[in-house]
Amino acid sequence: MSKTIEFYFDVGSPASYLAWTQLTGLAKRTGASIELKPMLLGGVFMATGNSSPATVPAKGNYSRIDMQRYAKRYGVTLNQNPFFPINTLQLMRGAVAYQGTADFERYLTTVFNAMWVDELDMGQPDVVGKVLAKGGFDPAAVMAKVSDPAVKEQLKAATEEAIGRGVFGAPTFFVGDEMFFGQDRIDWVEAAAKS
Amino acid sequence: MSKTIEFYFDVGSPASYLAWTQLTGLAKRTGASIELKPMLLGGVFMATGNSSPATVPAKGNYSRIDMQRYAKRYGVTLNQNPFFPINTLQLMRGAVAYQGTADFERYLTTVFNAMWVDELDMGQPDVVGKVLAKGGFDPAAVMAKVSDPAVKEQLKAATEEAIGRGVFGAPTFFVGDEMFFGQDRIDWVEAAAKS
Repeated sequence: MSKTIEFYFDVGSPASYLAWTQLTGLAKRTGASIELKPMLLGGVFMATGNSSPATVPAKGNYSRIDMQRYAKRYGVTLNQNPFFPINTLQLMRGAVAYQGTADFERYLTTVFNAMWVDELDMGQPDVVGKVLAKGGFDPAAVMAKVSDPAVKEQLKAATEEAIGRGVFGAPTFFVGDEMFFGQDRIDWVEAAAKS
Repeated sequence: MSKTIEFYFDVGSPASYLAWTQLTGLAKRTGASIELKPMLLGGVFMATGNSSPATVPAKGNYSRIDMQRYAKRYGVTLNQNPFFPINTLQLMRGAVAYQGTADFERYLTTVFNAMWVDELDMGQPDVVGKVLAKGGFDPAAVMAKVSDPAVKEQLKAATEEAIGRGVFGAPTFFVGDEMFFGQDRIDWVEAAAKS
């Protein structure tokens, strides 16, 4: 029986983006189904006392080099967004709003690429509006969704669920009860999904 | 021409211990020579604003699982020292005191194993004395060395040198100017040393 790989992420995390680019390959190699689980990384950080590597300058510098090494290995483009860190509250509310719909993957592709390939200031509503329109979305409809109290609650609940499972950063994978943190643990996720 | 792999470490870091168990294999596979570079991780943390993963409880919990996974992959024993974190100032002064001597590797083997296999309280001078005696050292002679102002200065200089090169945690490898952080980057170090 094929397994499920749960993937907790935030579009504002470059490591989440890198891992996200590898999910199709991971699914193919393992036969596992991937469950995309949006969460608010800022909420995870606040609840756990964790923080971005970028808050330690030497770690942030190295982290950028390290992620470029992986981008090269994966054969994907990762551009360091000059507006990083970006508040992703609205974007992640959008993600849970589209979760489970036919537009979910297109939403994520649109937002991830705007953030980590096109280096846009995705904390600015006008920029987000243009990006969504270009991605085939009606920006006003998306804005209506992210203002819906049920959607706000859904993101909060998703983030709390992640924290309750021991998540402290992004991306985080689960294969059953086994947790794997980081885009650099894909080989471990692959082995767990195949076992 | 074979390359040099520089290995910055602190005996109080379980990830340093894990990486240290892999150095012989790394040297064999690459033909590189390994330069062991003691540093005081506490000093690195203070200077860079970094801290141990264990300071974030959820990260500390995961980190222990993650390191056990690697210990199993490597086929080595890693026991979680119940006295962690241990102040390693005296132990690392001992390391620089023996650096460049015929006893250096035996000193490291003695201390690393006491810490991460035998789970001893290596912050206690009497425990350290017994461990060193069992490892074939004269504890009084070691104590005399670690009290030598020149040795104290040597550890301080080594730590500052590491910080100056961008080190923020342990273990950290260098192959030329390329820096790799973490025991989980050995495959990258290996590739860099072979290139």
